[in-house]
Amino acid sequence: MLLASAMILLTGCGGQKADAQTKGDAITTIMNRKSVRSYTGEKLSQEQIETLLKAAMAAPTGMNAQPWRFVVLTDPAVIADVFANERGDMYKQAGAVFIVCGQTTVTQRPRGQENAEPQEVPNQFWYEDCGASTENLLLAAEAMGLGAVWIGCYPIQAKIDNLVSKLGIPENVMPYAIVPVGYPAGNDQPKDKWKPENVHYNKW
Amino acid sequence: MLLASAMILLTGCGGQKADAQTKGDAITTIMNRKSVRSYTGEKLSQEQIETLLKAAMAAPTGMNAQPWRFVVLTDPAVIADVFANERGDMYKQAGAVFIVCGQTTVTQRPRGQENAEPQEVPNQFWYEDCGASTENLLLAAEAMGLGAVWIGCYPIQAKIDNLVSKLGIPENVMPYAIVPVGYPAGNDQPKDKWKPENVHYNKW
Repeated sequence: MLLASAMILLTGCGGQKADAQTKGDAITTIMNRKSVRSYTGEKLSQEQIETLLKAAMAAPTGMNAQPWRFVVLTDPAVIADVFANERGDMYKQAGAVFIVCGQTTVTQRPRGQENAEPQEVPNQFWYEDCGASTENLLLAAEAMGLGAVWIGCYPIQAKIDNLVSKLGIPENVMPYAIVPVGYPAGNDQPKDKWKPENVHYNKW
Repeated sequence: MLLASAMILLTGCGGQKADAQTKGDAITTIMNRKSVRSYTGEKLSQEQIETLLKAAMAAPTGMNAQPWRFVVLTDPAVIADVFANERGDMYKQAGAVFIVCGQTTVTQRPRGQENAEPQEVPNQFWYEDCGASTENLLLAAEAMGLGAVWIGCYPIQAKIDNLVSKLGIPENVMPYAIVPVGYPAGNDQPKDKWKPENVHYNKW
């Protein structure tokens, strides 16, 4: 009898339910992700930072260019310097600040010319790849019980100039987004943004 | 004795392990997402389409503008017409094709002028929001056992013109990405894109 009960409970944990749970969890993470702007000040571990970066680098990428580059700020003195003109404690209290950048050029052979020298040409999809990468980073943070927020950088020139000069970002790399990540200090909740009126079927 | 064994197994299902599983699943989905370009031809249900759209609309959005708009193609005749010039069966075999669009303007009051009339101004973050939204759509598809691929549209003028004219997309809305979604016909695997050399700490 005890075994039978246990079996029922265990079945609930294993087969169908585990499958539904597996399917549900990524969707739940997507629906639960929210902008978190206040953190406890606790630093992230190197393992946490690498998990976030691995998620960010798993994004889709046009022509497999993988244009994303990351500057991870963990040093309080660097964070204080880079965000000296920002109000509030958000950056100071973050567990780490990720600067998602994109290389704006890609090295490739001219189309249909297999024997030509590879050339450095503009990558017109660099910011799309960086968008997907940044979203992966935010979702991974949510999944890990951390909080994060996407602060727009590109195409705001003053923010770009500040990061390029303070961090020594090279000429063909553009800072795209700033993502502080940390242990949530508050109780931020996701917004319901479902609007069926934003959907059209087969014709606008 | 049976109870004790069951308890151990149940604890493994409920407490720490379930927590680790919950944390792992969204990360696993992010790491397992791959570009899937061949589908069985089976159509998606309305419920599946809405789950994908809800995930897409749960993306972060600058100034809460929610610029994303979606045209969902389910009618084989429309799909055949829109992609008449594309080679292969990808679009024809998809369970649905999502055109992720972005409204390029936002209606807001001039900063610091609470009593002024709201004005329609350019939204410089529309494509960042659409990037996050598109990635959510791809991840939700992966989580649901479906396959999808991000086909770049913006800023390729010929693709934009085709979609605008065939679908009647209005002037201040830009088609951003094309995402066929369907039941995978092949066995596509994710790529390992982890490159520690793409990461810098505290300075480039």
